Amino acid sequence: EDAWEVAGRRFRSRLLVGTGRYRSLEETAAAIAASGAEIVTVAVRRVNLSDPSAPMLQDYVPPDRYTYLPNTAGCHTAEEAVRTLRLAREAGGWDLVKLEVLGPPPHLYPDMAETLRAAEVLIRDGFKVMVYCADDPVAAKRLEEMGCVAIMPLGAPIGSGLGIQNRVTIRLIVEQAKVPVLVDAGVGTASDAAIAMELGCDAVLLNSAIAHAKDPIRMARAMKAAVEAGRLAYLAGRMPRKLYADPSSPLSGLI
Amino acid sequence: EDAWEVAGRRFRSRLLVGTGRYRSLEETAAAIAASGAEIVTVAVRRVNLSDPSAPMLQDYVPPDRYTYLPNTAGCHTAEEAVRTLRLAREAGGWDLVKLEVLGPPPHLYPDMAETLRAAEVLIRDGFKVMVYCADDPVAAKRLEEMGCVAIMPLGAPIGSGLGIQNRVTIRLIVEQAKVPVLVDAGVGTASDAAIAMELGCDAVLLNSAIAHAKDPIRMARAMKAAVEAGRLAYLAGRMPRKLYADPSSPLSGLI
Amino acid sequence: EDAWEVAGRRFRSRLLVGTGRYRSLEETAAAIAASGAEIVTVAVRRVNLSDPSAPMLQDYVPPDRYTYLPNTAGCHTAEEAVRTLRLAREAGGWDLVKLEVLGPPPHLYPDMAETLRAAEVLIRDGFKVMVYCADDPVAAKRLEEMGCVAIMPLGAPIGSGLGIQNRVTIRLIVEQAKVPVLVDAGVGTASDAAIAMELGCDAVLLNSAIAHAKDPIRMARAMKAAVEAGRLAYLAGRMPRKLYADPSSPLSGLI
Amino acid sequence: EDAWEVAGRRFRSRLLVGTGRYRSLEETAAAIAASGAEIVTVAVRRVNLSDPSAPMLQDYVPPDRYTYLPNTAGCHTAEEAVRTLRLAREAGGWDLVKLEVLGPPPHLYPDMAETLRAAEVLIRDGFKVMVYCADDPVAAKRLEEMGCVAIMPLGAPIGSGLGIQNRVTIRLIVEQAKVPVLVDAGVGTASDAAIAMELGCDAVLLNSAIAHAKDPIRMARAMKAAVEAGRLAYLAGRMPRKLYADPSSPLSGLI
Repeated sequence: EDAWEVAGRRFRSRLLVGTGRYRSLEETAAAIAASGAEIVTVAVRRVNLSDPSAPMLQDYVPPDRYTYLPNTAGCHTAEEAVRTLRLAREAGGWDLVKLEVLGPPPHLYPDMAETLRAAEVLIRDGFKVMVYCADDPVAAKRLEEMGCVAIMPLGAPIGSGLGIQNRVTIRLIVEQAKVPVLVDAGVGTASDAAIAMELGCDAVLLNSAIAHAKDPIRMARAMKAAVEAGRLAYLAGRMPRKLYADPSSPLSGLI
Repeated sequence: EDAWEVAGRRFRSRLLVGTGRYRSLEETAAAIAASGAEIVTVAVRRVNLSDPSAPMLQDYVPPDRYTYLPNTAGCHTAEEAVRTLRLAREAGGWDLVKLEVLGPPPHLYPDMAETLRAAEVLIRDGFKVMVYCADDPVAAKRLEEMGCVAIMPLGAPIGSGLGIQNRVTIRLIVEQAKVPVLVDAGVGTASDAAIAMELGCDAVLLNSAIAHAKDPIRMARAMKAAVEAGRLAYLAGRMPRKLYADPSSPLSGLI
Repeated sequence: EDAWEVAGRRFRSRLLVGTGRYRSLEETAAAIAASGAEIVTVAVRRVNLSDPSAPMLQDYVPPDRYTYLPNTAGCHTAEEAVRTLRLAREAGGWDLVKLEVLGPPPHLYPDMAETLRAAEVLIRDGFKVMVYCADDPVAAKRLEEMGCVAIMPLGAPIGSGLGIQNRVTIRLIVEQAKVPVLVDAGVGTASDAAIAMELGCDAVLLNSAIAHAKDPIRMARAMKAAVEAGRLAYLAGRMPRKLYADPSSPLSGLI
Repeated sequence: EDAWEVAGRRFRSRLLVGTGRYRSLEETAAAIAASGAEIVTVAVRRVNLSDPSAPMLQDYVPPDRYTYLPNTAGCHTAEEAVRTLRLAREAGGWDLVKLEVLGPPPHLYPDMAETLRAAEVLIRDGFKVMVYCADDPVAAKRLEEMGCVAIMPLGAPIGSGLGIQNRVTIRLIVEQAKVPVLVDAGVGTASDAAIAMELGCDAVLLNSAIAHAKDPIRMARAMKAAVEAGRLAYLAGRMPRKLYADPSSPLSGLI
């Protein structure tokens, strides 16, 4: 059986999904179920996790069935991120978390200096930190050496749906990593998720690609299949690329 | 249920696979089973379909379980192709066929002039012709108007594994077609198959991508999942691409 | 000196430009001068070449300074194309011509069957035929063997500005050709033209990329420089691509 | 006249070139002359700038004709980089410098944490710092706000020749910058340099693409023309991309 582990926990699904941007909590629940995800990210600052008088995520996406991964969406400094995750831990006992510290709009690119600062505090504080980051192999290695339990480089700007822009850096990060690597952000459609897995990533995290599809439930099923397809293709070992079927004609260096 | 039809027959699997290039007939059978394919192409000139003293494809890939699609691999003129398919019809009663007439090595690109000539004769002769062709929208339309039952443009040279080189022409062919369109040739790995389906193709036909993978059985499963993923993503309707998540910032024309 | 020859005539500029789609004949003349082109295509059916009471192209783009290359823009059958070029020869004595026979709107893709028919008649008729065609290596070879003096595959649909969609087919056509190969149609900006030349093409033909730029004169200068850049880079022989600067780390097959 | 300024100095050439990796100082000089560069980078730790008994760069690339830009090639910490540039300033009076602090082999990706630390010290020390960096828009903005006089994101790993991997991040950096942006590293051939300029960069810096070409002098001329072409195309404003020439047929979102 092909499973992966993060922070000592074992998962079979290699697709992690967000819980935001849906039209309703019903749709959220149905899309997540269709995706087969075992881990869901939860924007602590945006989702109602504690007011029982309003609709609560937990009633639709039961925490005993899904691993909740609180994230720091909406945080633009290390301090905000640390404070947010401490509150989450107090509220729900979560210590496996997703750290993201974003730069300013419009592009909301990861702020790596703040991310590194926050990671340091959180790890010292006992959190298991899965970290959203730029596709920067040096920063990725540093985050791993600090003790982050998973490295999650972006494929393209959050919410852009542009697909993986730089296969070289993702590949460099995968080659050097001893902890799981997940592409997080930028996936727009099924083939994007498959490509992430074919590059050797351990899993894919996405939200808008499902929530903003015309039919989110069907796209959730598409993403489930795409991640499985990409994983299997990576394990299977693809055929070599060549210019001609004729094996004696090597691929010209000019293409 | 999401099915497609060709020549009045209905299929659920959108992955068609070849039966050649494997290390053994056992591996052929196992890979095809793993692929979930309902239609298999058979190179009439290359596969033993009639000598019971040698291992026969039919013993491993039973014709009562799979739809055999005889093809004209190895034919370089219209005459050869027509003769080959007539022999196949006499031998096995097949009238749903795949026509391919290739130019010379090394690139073995489709010879469209010969293909058009052969298609005309075969259709007059009562064959149901699925036609392998260049990704040429004008030729594709002509083949459809002549009566071909499916249009099968190449994604890249046969056996190259380079993936779909020209999304524009595939898309143009899909937009204008009233019969099924299949990408045939050029798929190298799972994401390539997903992309073909995301472009709106009805199905994908491949052989080397499975047979020449390090682990053909696992790659067959990958391709099955990839075709399903791409089909679901196409039906689901992908999110728009944009440069920023911020909806007020339109994608710059410069990227 | 780096020159190229077609039909026994020698040219130094590797950029051929159209004369249509400009806002005025003044702009046409200025853009062509800025492009450095020595050959200009002229749409016989659209340009005023004979009515001295209306503004005439020849007054702005003197035929004694530029080689006029009459083309068959607007022709959708072999007969129309042949008739158009015969009229052009009678009117202006031109025998070096550009044949294009297009399929129907909206995509106006080359109609190769009609193109092959027209080429045969024109060559028999003594024309020197430079032929616009699909990026189909088998058809390209056939046109060359029939006697066409230059092969001009499209890079992308006419007027699309999408850049060269399929480097594999252009490269295959270049590798096999004994007559000049020009990319014709699809160039949108300077780098597209450079890429065509880096693939080994002998020249580039374009029109909209200059005429529909915001500043056509400046874009004409850009294209002149881009074609020179691409040609020089092709001759210079580019550095190898590799994943790392470290020569002992070979480029991973996965990127 | 189209010029650009950095640190109050005005330049017409938008191509900056390195002085290393050539087979001889004669070839270095000839390639630089052919490139038209006005600024040359000098690896202070690797080039002989002070021993008159050995061949000296200054004798071949005269500092009164070219602006020397000392760089910190070979430095992997902020301290090494600062020390190296202080020595260079003492030796040659140079205060316009290129800072680069690289991570470990094999990929030698920029170490942004060390780069930020070094930039702070150097700016305080009175240097005009042109900074090599990851294609990280947040880090780029921070470096600009600290006082760096030019931002120089990589297009691809140093010495890889892979071309610009991520047009989105380069474009984001260009859009937000108030100081010059140069693509530095990753250019492999002429079209890569043109693309950098078409994205709106102010200039391009490269070395291996010329030094490791088969014919460096000719490639230097190619790069000169390519940078001019890309710049002119950017200024000219390219035609819109569309799927069809027919203006009423909008580009399908599926391509």
